[in-house]
Amino acid sequence: MTNTIAAKFKQQLMQRFQQSRQLSEDLCQPLETEDYGLQAVAETSPAKWHIAHTSWFYETFLLKPFLNNFKPFHDQYEHLFNSYYNAIGQPFLRPKRGLLSRPTVKQVYQYRQTVSQQVLTLLDQSSFEQREPDEQKTIIDRIELGIQHEKQHQELFLTDLKYNFFQNPLYPAYRQPSATERFSPQSVIKPDAIKWQSIEAGVYQCGQSSEGFGFDNERPAHNQYLETSQLASRPITNGEYLQFIADKGYTNSILWLSDGWSWLQQNNVSHPLYWVELKDGWYEFTLFGLQPLLEHAPVCHINYYEADAFARWAGNRLATEFEWEVYASQRINELNTDFAEPPLHPSINAPDDSGIFHQTWQWTQSSYAQYPGFQPNEGAVGEYNGKFMCNQMVLRGGSCLSPSQHIRHTYRNFFYPTDRWQMSGLRLAK
Amino acid sequence: MTNTIAAKFKQQLMQRFQQSRQLSEDLCQPLETEDYGLQAVAETSPAKWHIAHTSWFYETFLLKPFLNNFKPFHDQYEHLFNSYYNAIGQPFLRPKRGLLSRPTVKQVYQYRQTVSQQVLTLLDQSSFEQREPDEQKTIIDRIELGIQHEKQHQELFLTDLKYNFFQNPLYPAYRQPSATERFSPQSVIKPDAIKWQSIEAGVYQCGQSSEGFGFDNERPAHNQYLETSQLASRPITNGEYLQFIADKGYTNSILWLSDGWSWLQQNNVSHPLYWVELKDGWYEFTLFGLQPLLEHAPVCHINYYEADAFARWAGNRLATEFEWEVYASQRINELNTDFAEPPLHPSINAPDDSGIFHQTWQWTQSSYAQYPGFQPNEGAVGEYNGKFMCNQMVLRGGSCLSPSQHIRHTYRNFFYPTDRWQMSGLRLAK
Amino acid sequence: MTNTIAAKFKQQLMQRFQQSRQLSEDLCQPLETEDYGLQAVAETSPAKWHIAHTSWFYETFLLKPFLNNFKPFHDQYEHLFNSYYNAIGQPFLRPKRGLLSRPTVKQVYQYRQTVSQQVLTLLDQSSFEQREPDEQKTIIDRIELGIQHEKQHQELFLTDLKYNFFQNPLYPAYRQPSATERFSPQSVIKPDAIKWQSIEAGVYQCGQSSEGFGFDNERPAHNQYLETSQLASRPITNGEYLQFIADKGYTNSILWLSDGWSWLQQNNVSHPLYWVELKDGWYEFTLFGLQPLLEHAPVCHINYYEADAFARWAGNRLATEFEWEVYASQRINELNTDFAEPPLHPSINAPDDSGIFHQTWQWTQSSYAQYPGFQPNEGAVGEYNGKFMCNQMVLRGGSCLSPSQHIRHTYRNFFYPTDRWQMSGLRLAK
Amino acid sequence: MTNTIAAKFKQQLMQRFQQSRQLSEDLCQPLETEDYGLQAVAETSPAKWHIAHTSWFYETFLLKPFLNNFKPFHDQYEHLFNSYYNAIGQPFLRPKRGLLSRPTVKQVYQYRQTVSQQVLTLLDQSSFEQREPDEQKTIIDRIELGIQHEKQHQELFLTDLKYNFFQNPLYPAYRQPSATERFSPQSVIKPDAIKWQSIEAGVYQCGQSSEGFGFDNERPAHNQYLETSQLASRPITNGEYLQFIADKGYTNSILWLSDGWSWLQQNNVSHPLYWVELKDGWYEFTLFGLQPLLEHAPVCHINYYEADAFARWAGNRLATEFEWEVYASQRINELNTDFAEPPLHPSINAPDDSGIFHQTWQWTQSSYAQYPGFQPNEGAVGEYNGKFMCNQMVLRGGSCLSPSQHIRHTYRNFFYPTDRWQMSGLRLAK
Repeated sequence: MTNTIAAKFKQQLMQRFQQSRQLSEDLCQPLETEDYGLQAVAETSPAKWHIAHTSWFYETFLLKPFLNNFKPFHDQYEHLFNSYYNAIGQPFLRPKRGLLSRPTVKQVYQYRQTVSQQVLTLLDQSSFEQREPDEQKTIIDRIELGIQHEKQHQELFLTDLKYNFFQNPLYPAYRQPSATERFSPQSVIKPDAIKWQSIEAGVYQCGQSSEGFGFDNERPAHNQYLETSQLASRPITNGEYLQFIADKGYTNSILWLSDGWSWLQQNNVSHPLYWVELKDGWYEFTLFGLQPLLEHAPVCHINYYEADAFARWAGNRLATEFEWEVYASQRINELNTDFAEPPLHPSINAPDDSGIFHQTWQWTQSSYAQYPGFQPNEGAVGEYNGKFMCNQMVLRGGSCLSPSQHIRHTYRNFFYPTDRWQMSGLRLAK
Repeated sequence: MTNTIAAKFKQQLMQRFQQSRQLSEDLCQPLETEDYGLQAVAETSPAKWHIAHTSWFYETFLLKPFLNNFKPFHDQYEHLFNSYYNAIGQPFLRPKRGLLSRPTVKQVYQYRQTVSQQVLTLLDQSSFEQREPDEQKTIIDRIELGIQHEKQHQELFLTDLKYNFFQNPLYPAYRQPSATERFSPQSVIKPDAIKWQSIEAGVYQCGQSSEGFGFDNERPAHNQYLETSQLASRPITNGEYLQFIADKGYTNSILWLSDGWSWLQQNNVSHPLYWVELKDGWYEFTLFGLQPLLEHAPVCHINYYEADAFARWAGNRLATEFEWEVYASQRINELNTDFAEPPLHPSINAPDDSGIFHQTWQWTQSSYAQYPGFQPNEGAVGEYNGKFMCNQMVLRGGSCLSPSQHIRHTYRNFFYPTDRWQMSGLRLAK
Repeated sequence: MTNTIAAKFKQQLMQRFQQSRQLSEDLCQPLETEDYGLQAVAETSPAKWHIAHTSWFYETFLLKPFLNNFKPFHDQYEHLFNSYYNAIGQPFLRPKRGLLSRPTVKQVYQYRQTVSQQVLTLLDQSSFEQREPDEQKTIIDRIELGIQHEKQHQELFLTDLKYNFFQNPLYPAYRQPSATERFSPQSVIKPDAIKWQSIEAGVYQCGQSSEGFGFDNERPAHNQYLETSQLASRPITNGEYLQFIADKGYTNSILWLSDGWSWLQQNNVSHPLYWVELKDGWYEFTLFGLQPLLEHAPVCHINYYEADAFARWAGNRLATEFEWEVYASQRINELNTDFAEPPLHPSINAPDDSGIFHQTWQWTQSSYAQYPGFQPNEGAVGEYNGKFMCNQMVLRGGSCLSPSQHIRHTYRNFFYPTDRWQMSGLRLAK
Repeated sequence: MTNTIAAKFKQQLMQRFQQSRQLSEDLCQPLETEDYGLQAVAETSPAKWHIAHTSWFYETFLLKPFLNNFKPFHDQYEHLFNSYYNAIGQPFLRPKRGLLSRPTVKQVYQYRQTVSQQVLTLLDQSSFEQREPDEQKTIIDRIELGIQHEKQHQELFLTDLKYNFFQNPLYPAYRQPSATERFSPQSVIKPDAIKWQSIEAGVYQCGQSSEGFGFDNERPAHNQYLETSQLASRPITNGEYLQFIADKGYTNSILWLSDGWSWLQQNNVSHPLYWVELKDGWYEFTLFGLQPLLEHAPVCHINYYEADAFARWAGNRLATEFEWEVYASQRINELNTDFAEPPLHPSINAPDDSGIFHQTWQWTQSSYAQYPGFQPNEGAVGEYNGKFMCNQMVLRGGSCLSPSQHIRHTYRNFFYPTDRWQMSGLRLAK
């Protein structure tokens, strides 16, 4: 890069960095101090922890190796806010994150601001320009990774908070819905019947090619042979899911994977997470509090077993992640890359909206595995993705909780088949 | 009672009520808002819950049945802050108390103050005087019970907070020790050797006779035949307990009850709770943070199995609760009924202090059971004590965490043999 | 003792030894080889293990220290068949006893017979007479203890087998009932209404005085002060227990101890163990297979919580173990010390039978604890009783499964409050 | 088929049926009656259950629908010996199979022989020939499936028994090794260094084409695009695995998948299953009892996490199941389809033996999933394979425990990543 271009690029990077730092804090605005510490289960980290960990990430992988005269903000934060990087040391026990009343919220914000400032200092003209080009590149890559990492935590912040609030019989609302976010069953239009979109058999290139940001697990681009298939033009709705329930979907073992049937019986499950049946019908706990279930909105908060059982009941199946990717690659125009804050709840209002990127994550039948020739990132940051390539299923898409500029058609999300607290729904294939 | 005496009595009751309400709030002064929600295990309730539950108790057992035009502060608080009274309805799940970020601390204090005001209103001259004498008596008894109940929660507030803070690698201090509370090993004098105090064989009256407040489980007064026995003149110290450890006390199965040995092995226990071994020796987590272990202070935070094993190792045994009561009845003069706040950590500084009432609770070999002729309190409040009379052991005494005017020689505390988070120590008998 | 008396005494001891060894084997007669290995839960040891362990007991505590030129039958049996004596070494894991297909049944019987023969050899005139009197006494005491120990295991053999068989949907019968053991509801007469037997207040001597065999936990004899009480003239019947169930006894929390209510809810309990409700009414699994529930027979296989809840429902309570002992001491004439094999199921057929010794064990409200001045047996055999003196409740009586000459009015049985697989019932007190 | 060919085919089928029935019984010859009931964990079914279930399979899927005047041998066996076919009814609880002492071994053999006879009766000339061709085909297919099903259980019988025997400190041997099966470290030759066999990039047809028996999960044949890869010429040996251990393979978190690391820590794992370290070195529990570990034999009884960690340590990876299949398709000549009984322990003695089919199953990096166009078998037998397509990993190959004529290069075995009790090893890829 020439100096001028480099300067402009760095300028843009700093701006995106600051925007992403700001968004995390904006998302916390509606919280009471008491809300910051909630952790109902190991998976649903406290808001305060997200705020701290997304700073820890820069401190550990960027500031510590590269900032001149680096001193940690606090000696023990490396331990306290490490998520799962064993190469950095033994992380503080995940299920106990909610027990850290100290540092306080205020102290964590101080930590956060110190780190943000240090990142900007690191990029500062004179010192940065004197570094070797390789080092400059690594620094820029790490900041980019930090931004993308924080975007992931912005979505997790919302799904974790939702789960944690749901434990409270008062059903707290994260915020009040605006006039356009009203939740009456009439507020969402009935979608058209599903149309089937064909994919021809043949060899397709999948995964991310080299330009633009992508996680290591999206790489390398490689060939996949796909048989002929068809994918549904839109996700399954709550109304369709209610038919599955009415048809005894949750009590008919034939529809379920063996492990799914065990899960269902052990946990006595008969409907998606967050559904609450009151005297006057079904309600759904949302980030706007308890709201009437929207018949025509995409079903969400189902796990892999539920998605798979529904598909079997419907006489169809789930797509593989590669079928999904080919399908999505033809709908790139539906990507909305510029919005201030995520809309918080799925709701398809345009008849031609396939709901592919911005409604719910969609379970695929593909287990999370490495692509041929996969290379994890170097060093401790290599633990980011690769070590989770077992026992989890790939979800594709993006959701109403994903921040702006985070989603792309090669993006691979992954969760355990039992997980339900993510914004997860389904799209049929056959 | 004549009217004048009654008025004075009521005046004193109101004063004691207000003092006890105030103490709970004073004890919360050192807390950050974030600290109010901590609950590491089901047993260690959040500070906020204690503050709310001690108000719920008056609301449920006093205001609801007796206050004219009573309206609850909030419809769901009856459910949220019920501890274990099944007759009142299904209590909110105990292990999830820490997940109630709402109501906020501020709202809970509003609830608390509303209840306090309503109790005072109930006692107000004109309306109170018009009630039937029986009803007046019940009201006064319930307020007295409420005061005693709150005193119990003041101690639990401290033991729960200590346990919850201990989960944090930062070892937060509840407050800083004052100059006279310094924690150097030299600051506590070496106690004299144990002397043995004899109790003659014979029939003794035990339990509380009718005057003065006592819980239902201390009644009725009744006869117990005691064989000749001897009790130690002081509790066991940390230094003596270190000898037990040095002598392989924790690895010699012969010293342990069968269930105790299983507990020890499953939990890999080798020292009392809160002891931390660093490079330069033993430390103990206290309400003043991590402090050097005081050799001459009474050992605390051991469970029944540890107390029993130590006693067997020493060639002695634990006292029965009746032996203890007879012993303590001869040391009533050691009761200190007038101090502002509990001293927070055990420390015997006077050579003639038997440590019977104000250092640590002392495990007895008596399981918690009903006295002959036991009658639980009437109504839902009858669940207060009676239903726990199984699987728990009686502790006698009182501790450095017990509030003023709470302890008496007939008082029966009770915990499971595995419990360690209370201020529990031991006194030998033979 | 003079030589002649000693010889006669030894003769009798050898006879009783052989009878007890024979009875264990007789009790195994109805078993198939496959039945010998069953162990459904840790508590219910396999028949083969009982047969081996009752030989191990003699080998370990008698033959190893006293038999000249002793060689163990097999090097590893000391480990395999040790129940819980930590001083002997780490016992083989209790829950895995059922996984020892080897040694085979045949090999275990060979082991058993070798041990029996060695015990007789040890008592053989010439060698035995040359020992010191103290050693002679120890040997005789250990044989006596071995006989009593084996009697305990004869009852456990039956209760364990019953539980293990119950896991099988074929409901195997241990043996077929004879004509007089028929199980029609008409075969047991309706008992008279309960009469109340008074015990006067005062000091009573309890526990075993020095003559005759008694376990260490029955000693020493000591004084207990008892308040006035009354005990029921007979145990509670199935018919009476059905009234408790019909009156929603299992869903009314007020009737239950707190731990009992938790147990009930976690295990979804609504009737005694072994009760099976079929289309035509209640059945009960017995050692004679599945049989119609006998309305007038004593209720059995209830745990402490159930016994306690029933008593509370009935407006009464359970007796203390000392009340029970005083009551039983007045009914010594009901002891039947001479029968071949236990009758296997409770059934009171005589109007004047108080059912005190031979029907079901009766839960008392006393937790299992040491008597004042308790001294466990010396050496490893001291682990026999003392180390279990925590968390368990005393049952008094004896049962239809207890072998002849095993029961006495000072006998203390003890089990956890949750245990139901013993032949446990209840007698009311007030 | 013409009648003559059909008759000959049927003749061969009957012969293979009888051979497979006989082999199961021959494999049981070394057992004591006591051994038949062992079940250490839910996964390791008792020998008796295998003997019964392989008869149940014919009874349920063949005799019940097709045999004229069919009457079940016993009303409850359908329930008792159902493995996991929910469409047939609620199976008896898997973890409790070892608690079924009844029916006895003898009775189960009677059941088995009755079923065998009924299958032969069904194929009997006159009645069989009168059936519709479709029905004839279904019957023949079901018998073929029954034979293959029984072959699977013959291998499971051995792996289950091995695990169950291992619980016994006596280390029972299933049978004694012959002279040629001797287990000295010198008895197995050192293999050559691994050579790498290349697979070219391109589209390959995988899965079973229509001729010959194959399970539904091997079908349909379909295309897979493979990148260039190389597979190792032989499996990893115990000696090589010892190097991994010596290099701290079990304590270096970087080598492990996240779930694998959790598994390792929770279970305190430091070596393969069945390895026992004695004073004079490593031993391995085998079906011949405890034997010195063979340095040059293939490592076995490792789970997916261990295989994956070893491969990462070696700088390689595991093959995908399709890479493996292409590799194996070029070594069909190594298939040995004609031997009497499996050799019971892996041992490569020929320098040119790739160990692909008859040593150990080889973990692949492929999760068990449906092939494109997968159709499960029709009816209840459709639960055979399809419902397990989640959370499990594919193993390819065959083992020293696989019976004759069972293995083919398209065969897909599948187990959970934590499973170790199968004869599972690894082959490297890169």
